[in-house]
Amino acid sequence: MRNTAVLLVVCPDRKGLVAAIANFLLRHNANILHADQHQDSAAGLFLMRVEWDLDGFELGLHRFDEAFGPVAAEYGMRWNLSLSSVRPRLAIFVSKYDHCLADLLYRHHAGELYCEIPLIVSNHPDTHWLAEAYKVPFQHIQVSKDNKPDAEARQLAMLDAHHVDFIVLARYMQVLSPDFIGHYPNRIINIHHSFLPAFHGAKPYQRAFERGVKLIGATSHYVTEVLDDGPIIEQDVTRITHRDDLEDLVQKGADLEKVVLSRAVKWHIDNRILVYGNKTVVFD
Amino acid sequence: MRNTAVLLVVCPDRKGLVAAIANFLLRHNANILHADQHQDSAAGLFLMRVEWDLDGFELGLHRFDEAFGPVAAEYGMRWNLSLSSVRPRLAIFVSKYDHCLADLLYRHHAGELYCEIPLIVSNHPDTHWLAEAYKVPFQHIQVSKDNKPDAEARQLAMLDAHHVDFIVLARYMQVLSPDFIGHYPNRIINIHHSFLPAFHGAKPYQRAFERGVKLIGATSHYVTEVLDDGPIIEQDVTRITHRDDLEDLVQKGADLEKVVLSRAVKWHIDNRILVYGNKTVVFD
Amino acid sequence: MRNTAVLLVVCPDRKGLVAAIANFLLRHNANILHADQHQDSAAGLFLMRVEWDLDGFELGLHRFDEAFGPVAAEYGMRWNLSLSSVRPRLAIFVSKYDHCLADLLYRHHAGELYCEIPLIVSNHPDTHWLAEAYKVPFQHIQVSKDNKPDAEARQLAMLDAHHVDFIVLARYMQVLSPDFIGHYPNRIINIHHSFLPAFHGAKPYQRAFERGVKLIGATSHYVTEVLDDGPIIEQDVTRITHRDDLEDLVQKGADLEKVVLSRAVKWHIDNRILVYGNKTVVFD
Amino acid sequence: MRNTAVLLVVCPDRKGLVAAIANFLLRHNANILHADQHQDSAAGLFLMRVEWDLDGFELGLHRFDEAFGPVAAEYGMRWNLSLSSVRPRLAIFVSKYDHCLADLLYRHHAGELYCEIPLIVSNHPDTHWLAEAYKVPFQHIQVSKDNKPDAEARQLAMLDAHHVDFIVLARYMQVLSPDFIGHYPNRIINIHHSFLPAFHGAKPYQRAFERGVKLIGATSHYVTEVLDDGPIIEQDVTRITHRDDLEDLVQKGADLEKVVLSRAVKWHIDNRILVYGNKTVVFD
Repeated sequence: MRNTAVLLVVCPDRKGLVAAIANFLLRHNANILHADQHQDSAAGLFLMRVEWDLDGFELGLHRFDEAFGPVAAEYGMRWNLSLSSVRPRLAIFVSKYDHCLADLLYRHHAGELYCEIPLIVSNHPDTHWLAEAYKVPFQHIQVSKDNKPDAEARQLAMLDAHHVDFIVLARYMQVLSPDFIGHYPNRIINIHHSFLPAFHGAKPYQRAFERGVKLIGATSHYVTEVLDDGPIIEQDVTRITHRDDLEDLVQKGADLEKVVLSRAVKWHIDNRILVYGNKTVVFD
Repeated sequence: MRNTAVLLVVCPDRKGLVAAIANFLLRHNANILHADQHQDSAAGLFLMRVEWDLDGFELGLHRFDEAFGPVAAEYGMRWNLSLSSVRPRLAIFVSKYDHCLADLLYRHHAGELYCEIPLIVSNHPDTHWLAEAYKVPFQHIQVSKDNKPDAEARQLAMLDAHHVDFIVLARYMQVLSPDFIGHYPNRIINIHHSFLPAFHGAKPYQRAFERGVKLIGATSHYVTEVLDDGPIIEQDVTRITHRDDLEDLVQKGADLEKVVLSRAVKWHIDNRILVYGNKTVVFD
Repeated sequence: MRNTAVLLVVCPDRKGLVAAIANFLLRHNANILHADQHQDSAAGLFLMRVEWDLDGFELGLHRFDEAFGPVAAEYGMRWNLSLSSVRPRLAIFVSKYDHCLADLLYRHHAGELYCEIPLIVSNHPDTHWLAEAYKVPFQHIQVSKDNKPDAEARQLAMLDAHHVDFIVLARYMQVLSPDFIGHYPNRIINIHHSFLPAFHGAKPYQRAFERGVKLIGATSHYVTEVLDDGPIIEQDVTRITHRDDLEDLVQKGADLEKVVLSRAVKWHIDNRILVYGNKTVVFD
Repeated sequence: MRNTAVLLVVCPDRKGLVAAIANFLLRHNANILHADQHQDSAAGLFLMRVEWDLDGFELGLHRFDEAFGPVAAEYGMRWNLSLSSVRPRLAIFVSKYDHCLADLLYRHHAGELYCEIPLIVSNHPDTHWLAEAYKVPFQHIQVSKDNKPDAEARQLAMLDAHHVDFIVLARYMQVLSPDFIGHYPNRIINIHHSFLPAFHGAKPYQRAFERGVKLIGATSHYVTEVLDDGPIIEQDVTRITHRDDLEDLVQKGADLEKVVLSRAVKWHIDNRILVYGNKTVVFD
């Protein structure tokens, strides 16, 4: 495992930004491993991701804020520092469909997702066995129209108790309240089973089938207050034919959902995603 | 070039359909080269495409109607016969964007599209040089709000005079009237520069850019009275990144449009497409 | 679950084949659900897959052989009948890499693979926990240069005892002997982690990395005596960039391997694959 | 059209490289538009592409060499500077297959390829009409076993007379001599009609057909003395089925070849490609 730091920066574009950051890092003897930047010329923004080796880095990270503060202030930067050695803590929300859950748990077991998973939350007991197979704590919290505020309060308390950093909705079939979402801005990742903005809302496979499209898709995005409208992280599609009935679409789609969701989760963990406006930059 | 016949059939599904058609063909000594069928169980329909060698076929084609009529009547078939040796006659409509036109003309020249192209119609003179390079007659017919009915009347007269069988809108930027469309039901192919039903209507690339999608698409479809809503023939997508600005989307999209449109045209010529309801079956 | 029969046929091409089969089925009141045929004109072969509803079929299947025999004899058909209600019995062979095993077990659990899995055989104990989670019997049989004939004899005895119909090598890292392979002709499916014929043999990812290819692939194929040379069932690729080191290739490749192997297994179970010469036809 | 400069750099990896380059540019008041870097940790190399606006850049480009020289020397950089306003001069070599030529000429006409095309060289007269349609000078130079050295001498003289910067072999069916290649190191781009290293050499489509692969590919690469072995720039594949005969492969492959070749040409023009060892980095 690498012992590196990742700095994400967004600020108004102007001259000298790359040099300012590179010099700050060099001053503290950083060995830059990756540096990638992007200008959104329409928005007038500069966005950067830089990763450096902490081996030999001469600035204590507890003092990073203080040391980098003046640079950030001068250029009006919004920034975020993360350490590759610190595993963020993920809670997975799931209902009855278990393919995304099984996929995430396997990838975590295989070392593809460098995070902790202290908690699975479900409004159904069906996936308990999977949680057990992978030895992850499982909480069954029933949700109905009537008890939703209570249920969310219980969920939030658990997330808090487990120091959860971000949430993945792995085909969780309940709409979260704006209040809940507000606790985890740009930290709740959803998978929607269509190529957004096509077929947002309910029953996307059935509507795709009825419209006679030739490809079906899946979209992972951050959750905002507007349903299926948050910043898109990743999308992919697969070809279907007239031979595929609705059940085939569901099955082919499941494979898409797994891949599109797991990429988003991995990129979030690796601090590759910068959200600005309602869009994302995913640094590769 | 093959000397074959293609029969497309759609009818209510019931037992004995494959045998009825196979026996009819065998009776006249047909050598079946391809036979493909599909059941739409939801709609209760049987759809078939069968292609046979005319070498040795003992039924004169002028008598096909009479001979096959009783079989068709018994099963309630809607059917269509075409000959691979007869090149259908295609008129291409185009405005200023010339990438689809250039692509179609090249493919026609290269022998990929087995049709005649007696006519290119444009509301702008810009693509005249391409028509000349490929030696295809070019007609410039200006279209404005005021003269639309007149312009369409002139277009229809030309199509008639040239015995045109089907029309391709190769990025033709005028909306056709229901009356015009009614002359060529399921015989006008359009290319829309988005993954329908996402971004139907105007400026799909700009709206895709603003929404922050990670893939852009193109859709070829038959034209119906409702804009961008006809039966979809083919779709494809390509990946974009945050590095792509609007101009890049337009350029990447152009490559998609060419491929997605030319596939639809080829399949139409090869009589591979069966329209039913608002969907297509494309026999491969 | 459908109650259908599938007939696969291959024979020299001549007139009347489709009618002969359709009439035979109609005579026994079969309702054909799918029929697909292919001519390999170079090889002069006719290949067909036909599936019909057993509901109302008036020929007892124990008498199918006797009844269809004369038709088959007349046309020189090699044929195979299978029932969708009969789950074939699959043994999975695996070594240490567990991604394909985990994927197959999950898909089996999810109902995507309509087969029984009476046995997992491994030359390492590492994947025992997965077998347990999915409640599949697991046999650890060590294999070394010295004990290979003995080990294979034990494996064959187990396969026999469990009435295994076909075998999947889910990244099983031992080369099987010709004698072993001879027991399951066209019934052992392997996944090779390259786009064959590129990089056959050992360490394909490393060689792909060194060659600087821009896509990596995976290939599922039936096992023959010549290493990585059997009839190809399915292939797919994924894009890599200069940012991907060898470890990234292995991880991206694992996702490919899972999908490419599981498609082959599914098609084998659904009797969609016809092997002829060193090629396959996969009826869709 | 942008007025920018692009610097490509490769050197042994060490600390301070990003800062050194960023500071050099800042010192001369450059506004960096794109900066992308890569470390090949196995090779111990640092590779970078940086593009900046020449508007406001205070260093005369005739003095760039002198000014940047000391930085380059200190770090042992191999570097290359190019200006987006200078169109490199491309000669296209072609034989009888004209699809890649037609595609490149159209893209050039459409403004996708920012280069001059002063010359088309062919060993056959067949594509003369295309050159005329796009108003590009065409030279027919016959090549046979006997006259090859003479023919190449004439070709080289023409390239020289037209100040050609790089050459594209658009399905040019003659093998170039090592001497010829030596005149344009990493400046001759070839398209090979297979997914290299599979099916290098002659008749790749036929061999793909015989092997029964499920995807066919195309590869663009720089030409070196070893046939089909130079640094790969781009590859792509497309799916085929048992329904595709050899002619279909050739036609589907042609579409691949066009796209894969034109991408390589565009990236070469945009100075996105760094060759090191037998590999390329393509900066996006």
